[in-house]
Amino acid sequence: MMTEIQQPTNPDHLDSGAKMHQLITELYPICRSITGDGVRQTLRRLQSYIPLTVHEVPTGTQVFDWTVPKEWNIRDAYVKNPCGEKVIDFQKSSLHVLNYSTPVAAKMPLSELKQHLYTLPKQPTLIPYRTSYYQENWGFCLTHETLQRLEAAEQAETGDYEIKIDSTLADGALTYGEFVLPGESEETVLISCHCCHPALCNDNLSGIALSTMLAQQMSAHPRRYTYRFLFIPGTIGSITWLALHEREARQIRHGLVVACVGDAGAMTYKKSRRGNAEIDRAVQHVLKTGGAPYKLLDFSPYGYDERQYCSPGFNLPVGSLTRTPHGQFPEYHTSADNPEFVQPATLADSLMQYLAVIDVLERNRTYCNLNPMCEPQLGKRGLYSALGGRQETQKNQLAMLWVLNGSDGQQTLLDIAEKADLPFTIIADMAQLLLEHNLLALA
Amino acid sequence: MMTEIQQPTNPDHLDSGAKMHQLITELYPICRSITGDGVRQTLRRLQSYIPLTVHEVPTGTQVFDWTVPKEWNIRDAYVKNPCGEKVIDFQKSSLHVLNYSTPVAAKMPLSELKQHLYTLPKQPTLIPYRTSYYQENWGFCLTHETLQRLEAAEQAETGDYEIKIDSTLADGALTYGEFVLPGESEETVLISCHCCHPALCNDNLSGIALSTMLAQQMSAHPRRYTYRFLFIPGTIGSITWLALHEREARQIRHGLVVACVGDAGAMTYKKSRRGNAEIDRAVQHVLKTGGAPYKLLDFSPYGYDERQYCSPGFNLPVGSLTRTPHGQFPEYHTSADNPEFVQPATLADSLMQYLAVIDVLERNRTYCNLNPMCEPQLGKRGLYSALGGRQETQKNQLAMLWVLNGSDGQQTLLDIAEKADLPFTIIADMAQLLLEHNLLALA
Amino acid sequence: MMTEIQQPTNPDHLDSGAKMHQLITELYPICRSITGDGVRQTLRRLQSYIPLTVHEVPTGTQVFDWTVPKEWNIRDAYVKNPCGEKVIDFQKSSLHVLNYSTPVAAKMPLSELKQHLYTLPKQPTLIPYRTSYYQENWGFCLTHETLQRLEAAEQAETGDYEIKIDSTLADGALTYGEFVLPGESEETVLISCHCCHPALCNDNLSGIALSTMLAQQMSAHPRRYTYRFLFIPGTIGSITWLALHEREARQIRHGLVVACVGDAGAMTYKKSRRGNAEIDRAVQHVLKTGGAPYKLLDFSPYGYDERQYCSPGFNLPVGSLTRTPHGQFPEYHTSADNPEFVQPATLADSLMQYLAVIDVLERNRTYCNLNPMCEPQLGKRGLYSALGGRQETQKNQLAMLWVLNGSDGQQTLLDIAEKADLPFTIIADMAQLLLEHNLLALA
Repeated sequence: MMTEIQQPTNPDHLDSGAKMHQLITELYPICRSITGDGVRQTLRRLQSYIPLTVHEVPTGTQVFDWTVPKEWNIRDAYVKNPCGEKVIDFQKSSLHVLNYSTPVAAKMPLSELKQHLYTLPKQPTLIPYRTSYYQENWGFCLTHETLQRLEAAEQAETGDYEIKIDSTLADGALTYGEFVLPGESEETVLISCHCCHPALCNDNLSGIALSTMLAQQMSAHPRRYTYRFLFIPGTIGSITWLALHEREARQIRHGLVVACVGDAGAMTYKKSRRGNAEIDRAVQHVLKTGGAPYKLLDFSPYGYDERQYCSPGFNLPVGSLTRTPHGQFPEYHTSADNPEFVQPATLADSLMQYLAVIDVLERNRTYCNLNPMCEPQLGKRGLYSALGGRQETQKNQLAMLWVLNGSDGQQTLLDIAEKADLPFTIIADMAQLLLEHNLLALA
Repeated sequence: MMTEIQQPTNPDHLDSGAKMHQLITELYPICRSITGDGVRQTLRRLQSYIPLTVHEVPTGTQVFDWTVPKEWNIRDAYVKNPCGEKVIDFQKSSLHVLNYSTPVAAKMPLSELKQHLYTLPKQPTLIPYRTSYYQENWGFCLTHETLQRLEAAEQAETGDYEIKIDSTLADGALTYGEFVLPGESEETVLISCHCCHPALCNDNLSGIALSTMLAQQMSAHPRRYTYRFLFIPGTIGSITWLALHEREARQIRHGLVVACVGDAGAMTYKKSRRGNAEIDRAVQHVLKTGGAPYKLLDFSPYGYDERQYCSPGFNLPVGSLTRTPHGQFPEYHTSADNPEFVQPATLADSLMQYLAVIDVLERNRTYCNLNPMCEPQLGKRGLYSALGGRQETQKNQLAMLWVLNGSDGQQTLLDIAEKADLPFTIIADMAQLLLEHNLLALA
Repeated sequence: MMTEIQQPTNPDHLDSGAKMHQLITELYPICRSITGDGVRQTLRRLQSYIPLTVHEVPTGTQVFDWTVPKEWNIRDAYVKNPCGEKVIDFQKSSLHVLNYSTPVAAKMPLSELKQHLYTLPKQPTLIPYRTSYYQENWGFCLTHETLQRLEAAEQAETGDYEIKIDSTLADGALTYGEFVLPGESEETVLISCHCCHPALCNDNLSGIALSTMLAQQMSAHPRRYTYRFLFIPGTIGSITWLALHEREARQIRHGLVVACVGDAGAMTYKKSRRGNAEIDRAVQHVLKTGGAPYKLLDFSPYGYDERQYCSPGFNLPVGSLTRTPHGQFPEYHTSADNPEFVQPATLADSLMQYLAVIDVLERNRTYCNLNPMCEPQLGKRGLYSALGGRQETQKNQLAMLWVLNGSDGQQTLLDIAEKADLPFTIIADMAQLLLEHNLLALA
């Protein structure tokens, strides 16, 4: 389901797209998992963009109903055929190893080895991505074509295969990254992405790159809200953060889970559990007024870390803004989710959408019309074009009337924009102008 | 408007269908009315299935704005032509007499008699069903073809007709049947059917038979709610019961008026006056997830006894679940509403729908997730399939996540099923499983 | 967008249509503006129909954020070409002068004069209507064809044009008309029309004529509500009235701004800012049950005086009921909005709609069923047709059941009519009948 991407014409955005793609390419070879040095290396690389803090939570820490697991590290892994040739080689792709495999060094016939091999018979040229975090196991992932070649060779000459997984699963820590941009208020916008997937680009090096670029760009300007960027392993990472930061969690006013933002599909917004939170309405407004096709999904308790943020005990207003959602593109969780699958232009477009959403959140205020009895005389303040005519002028004047009419101390600018069927940016700009003319005051 | 009936494959249900049809056939010849021995005989026959209580309310009893009318009984009625041949004979069909006719024994020419004859010119082979309860009158109902034959004979040879209606209209009682199945709670589910129509099968021997079979089957199992089954004459029966049982009426939490459940049309649900009561939502969920075509109607103050249960002073959550509604099938209130018009398979299907609705009512509870902060770790409890894959397993796991996410002490399982777009049965089964693993508690 | 007009068959209405058209024709030659003798003459003419009061508010009076402007009067205006021929002549059409022009007497070449000439190049045979109320200026409006003739003549022979505008702009008053029909209650229905446009018929001599006829017809009968008819200059008139009558404004329960009610387009209702006020629902019900095509518009802060009535400090339940809305017919604000453009039949149809809306407002009450437990026995009161049958009788009986079922002290008759999907008139008639039989009481 390809959709036409609005080509960002702002050269800064094009530049952002190229930078994000460059970062994805750099991070691609690192073997990440829910714990271990892969995550540490990844976060260290991000520190060259933003001064994020790396946190380590020891194995065994109780986090709500869960326990921080052992730390997994891997150095090498391969399978050699009876001729001693490496037929599966971790050095070529980190996907080749069942993620979180226990160490193994053994010889066995193909028939026995096959119980530990994972392929995609319907996508025979792709390596699948598989994990076994909470049930100790070992295994290899390979293309179905390779498996068929091994089986064919078996006909000619049998013999034991040499298996080696040089990994460790031991007490250590769960590692995550956090970057806080303080704002005027402690009220917080959460930007959360999972950083536990190895050589997969859309899911979720794209999310890591977008969050990093967003944090970097937002550092340059003052902010109303505090922004908290989390780079965490999926599920156990958000559970760990929430368990250790309940106070900070309660300050979250809006939030987005960032994933799959580099493919060519339409933007997709999965609403928060609340369904009509300000973040839900802000994203919908941005997508609707953006002009490109998009999809809206109701909340469901399946997906990424919004599952935890939206658990009933937290029920935070956190949605997820992606392009094609997880599981709905054929490259998902395969070796085809590679650097070619994500494009600078789509990454830049996704970043623009995030920035537009944040612009709505930052500027969405409730005002009181200081002249609520009838309209104020705009003309005597030079706010009413005597000549009229230009389409943009008319739109601005209509927007001014909407802001004045709607500013009753109850409706936000976003409420007004939706009633007026005008873009939030015009409504917010006119509110600013009226504020400067002392016709409005913050409610 | 025939619709394909889901053939019930459960042999018990097939058996139920045959039993209900057998009961209808037995009750068909009895001449029922709003009072009198016809109702008594009918209720006595039902007592061979369920131990229902027969109540007698004396003529003249004031029931709200109404008065219990005189009791009507009839032994015979006929019209003889001038040749002395019985051309209309009550013994052949109880429909031949205007129901509640006063006694008459007279001779009169056809021209005079015709003011007391009722036919259906557009359905000339059918006998209509007519009543005159609250305005004393006598009359005969016959096919239009018979009337035309009498008129033709009149051309050849005139003379007086002999008229005989051997009925009595005298002080006596209004009779109704009641069967109460006590449950854990005094909160009550009302199942009400009218039992005043003579030889008409869909309307409403089908309702009588379904209510009886439902009562019998439900006797076998423990129940959360108390179930009250009423077999009452239409309008005056429900008014009488409500007037004499206000306390019991106030305990009704859900209710259904049962009628026209044997024809081949689609299930039709007429909502209670409240429009969004639990019974309304339960029936809609059952019909929607059942897969067969169905219709929903908003409440209107015209129909069966829901008119009284939903009068503004009671406003009980009572809807009506039928197949084709009254007045919308051509056989309605004619001699064509006979035992062939109702079928065991459709009766069994209707019973299945009622049982499914009751299953929702019985199991629709509100729970608290005992682990509301993030998801509990299902895997360590063996609730999360490590292998995944089977479609049913995935549906169950998704249902488990929905139950956990939704169980905030506010939403019922039916709320959750509707949000999840999953059948209530799966949601309720998963809630039971989570309850057994101490992950839920009743709110 | 022509729509078929329901031809009013009531001869009174036909008569009303002719009368309104006659009034429009009489008022057409008067040069009105937001102040001045044109308005006074207009209101004096209306006094021959209704005893309205003429109010004068002095120049300089502060009205909220505005100031009552100087009074403008004009006696003559023309442009003579170099040959001394009058090429633009105010005596032929009051539209020829830029409304509120300052006085001028000068000679100048066409090139200079052209900065003060207004034409419609896309509608070259029509004179535009232009104003400059709050920025002092002078000018002439003419057909584009005339301008082209002047330019062609310029090629042959140049020379100065003689310009004369014999107007005065001086301290004086703002004039408006008010007519109050007292009712049982001080709760008020506002009928407001702007009377500031010169020779324009649909906008808004049609509104003036309809308001006048409505006031006249309503004088003949007793009324539940007080009716306040305002004939005011646009914007500054409603602001002035509101500023000087806050107490009266707070008594407004329902209101309509009357404009553009004589063209052949479909009825259009622009909702009040509240969106679901009783006036909004009453108008919608009348239009929906009327059978003719119609349009509904949500409130927007652009239009006629509803802008002021619906400013957030007042937020009065005032909508606007028109035929084709302002700006959406090509004759709008041109010399083509002449007496031929408005028709007696459409004026009469518009008046009928207004009367129907007022009938709903007058009769929309909330009742209590005095017999709320079950249905009352209608038969014993002669309210239930024993014979049944006639379609109208059945509709009436159904309406009676709806009124009884809905009269719970909460729902209005309009609520009940909408639920029943029956015309308000039938519901209100049946409520009256039930009231007379002591089955209802006012809530």
